[in-house]
Amino acid sequence: MEKILEYIESNQERFLEELKTFLRFPSVSAQPAHKQDMINCAQWLVGHLAGIGLETKLIEGDGHPIVRARVKGTSARRLIIYGHYDVQPEDPLDQWLSPPFEPEIRNGKLYARGATDDKGQVFAHIKAIEAVLQTGQPLGGEVLFLIEGEEECGGTVLADYIKYEKANLSKDALGVIVSDCEMLDENTPAITYALRGMVALEIGLKGPNRDLHSGTFGGAVGNPAIGLTSMISGCIQPNGEITIPGFYDDVSPLEDWEKENFTKLPSEDEQLKTDLEVKSLLGPSEMTSLEKTWARPTFEVNGIFGGYQGQGSKTIIPSSAGAKITMRLVPNQDPAKIAQVVKAHLQRICPDFVEMTITDVFSTQPVLFDIKSPLIRSACEALGEGFGQETAYIRCGGSIPVVNTFSQELEKPVLLMGFGLTSDGAHSPNECFSVATFQRAIKASAALLGKIP
Amino acid sequence: MEKILEYIESNQERFLEELKTFLRFPSVSAQPAHKQDMINCAQWLVGHLAGIGLETKLIEGDGHPIVRARVKGTSARRLIIYGHYDVQPEDPLDQWLSPPFEPEIRNGKLYARGATDDKGQVFAHIKAIEAVLQTGQPLGGEVLFLIEGEEECGGTVLADYIKYEKANLSKDALGVIVSDCEMLDENTPAITYALRGMVALEIGLKGPNRDLHSGTFGGAVGNPAIGLTSMISGCIQPNGEITIPGFYDDVSPLEDWEKENFTKLPSEDEQLKTDLEVKSLLGPSEMTSLEKTWARPTFEVNGIFGGYQGQGSKTIIPSSAGAKITMRLVPNQDPAKIAQVVKAHLQRICPDFVEMTITDVFSTQPVLFDIKSPLIRSACEALGEGFGQETAYIRCGGSIPVVNTFSQELEKPVLLMGFGLTSDGAHSPNECFSVATFQRAIKASAALLGKIP
Repeated sequence: MEKILEYIESNQERFLEELKTFLRFPSVSAQPAHKQDMINCAQWLVGHLAGIGLETKLIEGDGHPIVRARVKGTSARRLIIYGHYDVQPEDPLDQWLSPPFEPEIRNGKLYARGATDDKGQVFAHIKAIEAVLQTGQPLGGEVLFLIEGEEECGGTVLADYIKYEKANLSKDALGVIVSDCEMLDENTPAITYALRGMVALEIGLKGPNRDLHSGTFGGAVGNPAIGLTSMISGCIQPNGEITIPGFYDDVSPLEDWEKENFTKLPSEDEQLKTDLEVKSLLGPSEMTSLEKTWARPTFEVNGIFGGYQGQGSKTIIPSSAGAKITMRLVPNQDPAKIAQVVKAHLQRICPDFVEMTITDVFSTQPVLFDIKSPLIRSACEALGEGFGQETAYIRCGGSIPVVNTFSQELEKPVLLMGFGLTSDGAHSPNECFSVATFQRAIKASAALLGKIP
Repeated sequence: MEKILEYIESNQERFLEELKTFLRFPSVSAQPAHKQDMINCAQWLVGHLAGIGLETKLIEGDGHPIVRARVKGTSARRLIIYGHYDVQPEDPLDQWLSPPFEPEIRNGKLYARGATDDKGQVFAHIKAIEAVLQTGQPLGGEVLFLIEGEEECGGTVLADYIKYEKANLSKDALGVIVSDCEMLDENTPAITYALRGMVALEIGLKGPNRDLHSGTFGGAVGNPAIGLTSMISGCIQPNGEITIPGFYDDVSPLEDWEKENFTKLPSEDEQLKTDLEVKSLLGPSEMTSLEKTWARPTFEVNGIFGGYQGQGSKTIIPSSAGAKITMRLVPNQDPAKIAQVVKAHLQRICPDFVEMTITDVFSTQPVLFDIKSPLIRSACEALGEGFGQETAYIRCGGSIPVVNTFSQELEKPVLLMGFGLTSDGAHSPNECFSVATFQRAIKASAALLGKIP
């Protein structure tokens, strides 16, 4: 292990330069215009992994390709490491202090779209395996990377692949490592044992067959944008309480150890208000933000649109309006059931002057893992070694659909060891990743690779 | 009057050719590229009016010039005729069946941008004065044309001129004729005796200082798009009922003759549903659409925006959201008072997790003219003579800012006698003007000129 740590430390500068190269690809999976950038990024990754000594393959399906890379170990046992090379769209571009695809280090942080989500995190594992291989250390079992390009756009190529290769992948597998989540704070590593699920829908309301003069028609013809606001108000109160009948029915109550754990974890509510420049937070004051974001379901409007958005005024009744909606679900809520409950409610409250379409965008189950599993225990130790701090057990408010796929298809434990922070600004302008965390994460990953039985 | 009618009939072909020449100028006031076309069009008009025998002047200010032309009568009394020579942009060009600035007659209609709005309508008055002058008929008073070039771009040159020349213009004035509106149907002339006013506002809600990951923050941080929907729902019900306290306080009830008049006018509700492809109309079923659009105030969302609007999904809590709002006001509602009432209500219902800004965009007073005024009575008779049909009294749901300017500055009646139809497609591709209406309008205008006391 000493040789490995030395290797990691002496190659830190090069590792950072390589990560910058990885970040320069504008691999925005949701936007068709970036299709070639996606291919370029995947091919670069294949070349990089092959250079380290892994057997690589680009798996192409109908969507963006999967990068598969493996190296055999002394036993047949297999550790799967998951990551994604695709990133969120970069807008609003004018809020970035440095261009999103021109990585820049400022105050110990590397700024770029994808820095923390997920290029920086998955690259730490890549550099860990490089350190193990290049220092000639034995690997206890096979290490298999599956790095997809559809995490941010809800594609199914990886899920299809996992289902197709299910028998081969699960045979002898110890479990799956997913590093696409967070630490407790900048110094404290964490294992995430629960994720929220999600249901994403798009609502479209069609009114008159064209935009109408609001003087000539106003009062006689219903306005789809007003219809939309009334429908959304019929789903959620401004205080965050969801008013869709049956929505909260299956929410699991917290276990006692979790309640205790939540109260021990530091409350960041005041800091959050300051950081985000908001006067007040949402929801019941007796719950901390951790409990609200980890253990309570939500209903969010991610985007709303309709009518004229240019400068000045345009006196129209818009022909249509729409909203992108995501609901975060907590353990024991079933996305299919929630989608049904929500759609039935929307149908019920839809004004009769519009025609509604509801598009299913995607959905994913909430998950909850047993913190007593052997893989989670090994990881807890390895993180402690890499970071020099005791590991915390946390939940995560986000959803990682692939975790469900791995968990359901392979029936093996999934280990969520994240290296990100909320303040890294995933999905936001000025996304970043700590340079120090990058190095510690490489060390922690290398320590975990050393523990493959 | 017989000689005049004969003159109008025998010169019909030439009148149409001249109107075509007027329509060939691409006098698009909103587009700087057409600045020279605007000047060319105004100069042509000056030349044309001088040729008929009027004393003309091009009034130039910071914007597009005003064409002023007058001819004295036997008395000092003055009738002002308003019009505009500027037109809307022609786009979408690919939807025109014949080029917008190459006038073409098909099935009794003259197709060109500006045909009905407003070149055809104002040119009817010009040909009427020509007929009176060329046939040597006496004019009871002065006729003064004010034909502006900024109606479609919201310029202030004419309003500035009216304010500046207020004393001279109002002295001895009988009133102002505005023909930039509609008839009841293709055969029935109409006098528009009321217009709705307007208050236009823009609401902006600012939440967190950046777009946030809806998994990490959802449940703890308020969503401005949800705040906005709750606020709009707090202003208006989906059935169109405005729930802002005090909003309806000053709405004048309809007079008995109007109620009776509204029920006599043909209801177009079924046709409207078919044309617009909507299943149902808005508002109380006991009111016709005419009453709803003419005599009831509205609250419209002209545009709503916030968060992600691109393809697919982006799981964020948007940093901000906004809406463009216009309210149409009816006689006796005061825009300043309504703006105040609405803003106070918005402040009251604004969730505390967002900061709101309200921008005043513009406002205009509703107007209501006494149909018993001598000018309106004379016009009613003249229209009947020109069209061979009884004149209808109608309101209009829209606003014509210049009508307010004339009415407030000169304190004289404004006569709204329109020759257009909704189906003429003002502001739309394939704008047209009926050739038969053009001739009847010239006759009606000539008849009105003969009635100047």
